Amino acid sequence: MLVLGIDPGIAITGFGLIGLDSAGNPELVTFGVIDTTAVRETSSRLISLYDQLEALLQAYHPDECALEKLYFSKNISTAMAVGEARGVIQLCLARAGLQPGEYAPNEIKQAVTSYGNAGKHQVQEMVRLTLRLEQIPQPDDAADALAIALCHQGRSRIQSLEK
Amino acid sequence: MLVLGIDPGIAITGFGLIGLDSAGNPELVTFGVIDTTAVRETSSRLISLYDQLEALLQAYHPDECALEKLYFSKNISTAMAVGEARGVIQLCLARAGLQPGEYAPNEIKQAVTSYGNAGKHQVQEMVRLTLRLEQIPQPDDAADALAIALCHQGRSRIQSLEK
Repeated sequence: MLVLGIDPGIAITGFGLIGLDSAGNPELVTFGVIDTTAVRETSSRLISLYDQLEALLQAYHPDECALEKLYFSKNISTAMAVGEARGVIQLCLARAGLQPGEYAPNEIKQAVTSYGNAGKHQVQEMVRLTLRLEQIPQPDDAADALAIALCHQGRSRIQSLEK
Repeated sequence: MLVLGIDPGIAITGFGLIGLDSAGNPELVTFGVIDTTAVRETSSRLISLYDQLEALLQAYHPDECALEKLYFSKNISTAMAVGEARGVIQLCLARAGLQPGEYAPNEIKQAVTSYGNAGKHQVQEMVRLTLRLEQIPQPDDAADALAIALCHQGRSRIQSLEK
């Protein structure tokens, strides 16, 4: 089962794709960022974001996907800009038949590090260890997206065991 | 020149389409709302919003369009939800070759009533008078969208006179 985690942003959207190895452990498939900074206008950025995400979905055909539930910000303009990217991402996912799992930041931290108030670096280090990588994935947006994917994968496995 | 004003929302998105009559005065073409409340999931709502807006653009082929620049809210979740709708709307407009003019609430009030701190009812009443309507357009979201369209139409005319 391929899980795509997405960390939405208007300029940089992180993504991380994970599966399970033959022993049932989380395994990295790929990670990276959708970068729209080459384009200036918001509308053109949103088109670029949609097209790049669509290409990613067509290349990997993830079975499930997940997003951070809410971006906490004291800045309304930032929240609205992230919301714009998030709306376009959800539209693209929905058209591909994907209904994203949504997790609050502390749920993601809890799932990845077993500690809801873990720091950013702790989360990234646990992503590295869990996926048996030599280095922490860069940039941060990609590492965050992998953490979201790991959170969703863990939740899905717990839910399937409970059934 | 047909101008489409849009008041974005995740449940109800108001729209108002105006032109100019033979004497060069603003004239109502149509108004209404894109209502996605029949659908529960956010992703499905965003698809519904996109599809309804696309149908509207295909039916009327507006030449220009306008959105409120920023939604002021003390609530980050509301701002993000409006942002999601706004992102999908901008994507749809951009794909139709439309780059929306964006106006702050006080610019819209100033343009429609000549007073930047006008109340909601004053703005709606001026929309009614300017477009020579018997009643204030309902619901509020549609009246607000017409105010946005009137603001954009006024600005475009001023800019064309300055050239």
